[in-house]
Amino acid sequence: MLLDDSYFMKQALVEAQKAYEKDEVPVGAVVVVQQKIIARAHNLTEQLHDVTAHAEMQAITSAANYLNGKYLKGCTLYVTLEPCVMCAGALYWSQLERVVFAAADPKRGFVSAEVGLHPKTIYTQGVMETEALDLMQQFFIQKRG
Amino acid sequence: MLLDDSYFMKQALVEAQKAYEKDEVPVGAVVVVQQKIIARAHNLTEQLHDVTAHAEMQAITSAANYLNGKYLKGCTLYVTLEPCVMCAGALYWSQLERVVFAAADPKRGFVSAEVGLHPKTIYTQGVMETEALDLMQQFFIQKRG
Repeated sequence: MLLDDSYFMKQALVEAQKAYEKDEVPVGAVVVVQQKIIARAHNLTEQLHDVTAHAEMQAITSAANYLNGKYLKGCTLYVTLEPCVMCAGALYWSQLERVVFAAADPKRGFVSAEVGLHPKTIYTQGVMETEALDLMQQFFIQKRG
Repeated sequence: MLLDDSYFMKQALVEAQKAYEKDEVPVGAVVVVQQKIIARAHNLTEQLHDVTAHAEMQAITSAANYLNGKYLKGCTLYVTLEPCVMCAGALYWSQLERVVFAAADPKRGFVSAEVGLHPKTIYTQGVMETEALDLMQQFFIQKRG
């Protein structure tokens, strides 16, 4: 059975939930190559005191480690929130094949910032968007409470 | 004696030289707060097989670790090459006070990409530019040879 974008985004949401439980902004990511998840990560900026510890950055490092090479050719990154400028810059260098994100981030996302991914990279948005937004809203409501 | 931008950029060049000796694109960085160097780093993308291992990214992580907090308020980053989009995105999140770079990177630098740093952050370019460019050219000539 061919696993689809929703399947892999659900796995990214599992990662986002882990971030949520650690009181981190709930963003999760997985990297997939040939139907196989080779990296899983979630936002750890608070726990690590490190602004670079976004889910995507850790997923890129982890996937490159798995592949034993710095380019993620043929890989797809699934992430629950639109990548920011930093993460889009990292994705550019990685030359991965595809980026799939759930919720848009009009304020800090790469699309409205007009930051380009690598010419070899395509992206898809909106997969499991409602689920990702629900988790994000739940987080910020709880924070305010 | 007050140490100036040239002094700290020389320290970043020492880091760049370390990268050069490891056959890495020679970029080095230091983070300074109140005249004290709190982080040193150089590009390690080849050695670590990791596109995110730019000198600036490692310097940000290292400085945050030293400060035990993710914001680099009051800090200045000295780097031998204009930061790329990824690094500028990370610098944005860090809210540091100032970025000083030596050589411009019209192709992949954040200035021509029109990626903004944090409103609190100012930048200065061209400090020890000749020295940084010389090292870079030497590296690429040797690579081609």
